[in-house]
Amino acid sequence: MSDGTFPFAIRQRVRFAETDMQGVVYYANYLVYAEVGRSALLRHLGIRRDALQKSGLDFAIGEASVRYHAPLRYDDEFDVRVRVAEVRGASWTLHYAVDRADGLRCADMTTIQVVFDPRLSKAVRIPDDVRAALQGGAR
Amino acid sequence: MSDGTFPFAIRQRVRFAETDMQGVVYYANYLVYAEVGRSALLRHLGIRRDALQKSGLDFAIGEASVRYHAPLRYDDEFDVRVRVAEVRGASWTLHYAVDRADGLRCADMTTIQVVFDPRLSKAVRIPDDVRAALQGGAR
Amino acid sequence: MSDGTFPFAIRQRVRFAETDMQGVVYYANYLVYAEVGRSALLRHLGIRRDALQKSGLDFAIGEASVRYHAPLRYDDEFDVRVRVAEVRGASWTLHYAVDRADGLRCADMTTIQVVFDPRLSKAVRIPDDVRAALQGGAR
Amino acid sequence: MSDGTFPFAIRQRVRFAETDMQGVVYYANYLVYAEVGRSALLRHLGIRRDALQKSGLDFAIGEASVRYHAPLRYDDEFDVRVRVAEVRGASWTLHYAVDRADGLRCADMTTIQVVFDPRLSKAVRIPDDVRAALQGGAR
Repeated sequence: MSDGTFPFAIRQRVRFAETDMQGVVYYANYLVYAEVGRSALLRHLGIRRDALQKSGLDFAIGEASVRYHAPLRYDDEFDVRVRVAEVRGASWTLHYAVDRADGLRCADMTTIQVVFDPRLSKAVRIPDDVRAALQGGAR
Repeated sequence: MSDGTFPFAIRQRVRFAETDMQGVVYYANYLVYAEVGRSALLRHLGIRRDALQKSGLDFAIGEASVRYHAPLRYDDEFDVRVRVAEVRGASWTLHYAVDRADGLRCADMTTIQVVFDPRLSKAVRIPDDVRAALQGGAR
Repeated sequence: MSDGTFPFAIRQRVRFAETDMQGVVYYANYLVYAEVGRSALLRHLGIRRDALQKSGLDFAIGEASVRYHAPLRYDDEFDVRVRVAEVRGASWTLHYAVDRADGLRCADMTTIQVVFDPRLSKAVRIPDDVRAALQGGAR
Repeated sequence: MSDGTFPFAIRQRVRFAETDMQGVVYYANYLVYAEVGRSALLRHLGIRRDALQKSGLDFAIGEASVRYHAPLRYDDEFDVRVRVAEVRGASWTLHYAVDRADGLRCADMTTIQVVFDPRLSKAVRIPDDVRAALQGGAR
């Protein structure tokens, strides 16, 4: 996966709070970094959870996975890169890379996000405007 | 403050997630420990946030403070001790101690919790049943 | 995966801190729950990170994945179930289930943990005593 | 405390991870925001923990307090404002404000940071260069 395949990135800096006693970023915090990237991408694409909720829908993460390649440390700057990998009937897959500012690939991640009806606790078809926005972001 | 003055305690064990690169529990996590003690005390006293919400009220923390005495480390067992220190018109004060299982005092904490009306964003008088329960826990 | 296949479990209760604005446990916190289960299992098997470090080694998570089935909410009690799924040359795989106290399966997780030499940043063979302990826990 | 009295600020955006089931930022996370502000201020003043450690010293938070005025919500942008309030023999006090981007004061915080010798677990005099840098930041 070259950087070129990620059309979207957001820069962050490792907080002291995010480290653990091994002196590196605690492994679960990479999913927080994924959320920061995902939120920024969806905001960029004009997909808003509050708008979805007004039509009685919500979304949630159905699956998440992380492969750790190199540790991040306190005060490191890094980029969370995100792209839309696939859009299906009720869900979409995002791919992420966490790259230290000097380019070192620290982690790869994947999430599957599902649109559901909270009253029915049931997955439902992605609304057309959200689908169009995601497909626009799937470059 | 002798242990005797805390009528209520809950035992916990330090998670890896709660440590930081100094090898000790990250300072903000003591407020999470306070919440664990506070939740357990309120549950013990029969004070339920969802019941309060049914009468259109909620509560929130208005002030919190921590004094750090000794560090906790990964896998340490410790007790969060809590007592009701004062009950006022719209708020109450809790005192906490975080003691390592061998008795070492690691931190003292104080929180002020306020009852408010979420529609008005305004503090309101503590309901009588909550007041009675808190005063019963103030021994 | 029936409960019977998990020989080890540890009970926890959802903290307020672990919830998010959707009213359920935030998705990254399941990896914290995995760590609580993993730490408890390793402690139970007599595998200690500080002992490993004395022989110049350490371990870290190389891969982690979560499938989310049902949400946990504040104050829910739940069990983190863990088993050793596979032991290889330099790494081992753990499987986890997060089950609400009434038995509802909320999440499945997998982690791959790698033994490495921190001076070389290189994976190394699992020490014999650790391997034997893990194989003893792989029932 | 007018904004004018804080010579230093860093802008952040609320993460989903930082919210709780009340739909607002969880109270302990304000101490994480304080750390982000404190880290940025110390970096700006040229005070580095790794340099301090080379001379056998470290620092830690001895006291922290927060007063909550208004809630922050998901996606809100906000500024963490910091100033050096007092420099003593072995410790210094920082004051913080957390202001939503539109100027709403959401929280005030105070921390006391102590220089200590980790081998003796004992507070020691602030090194002269650190003292000078802090006093330069105390405008």
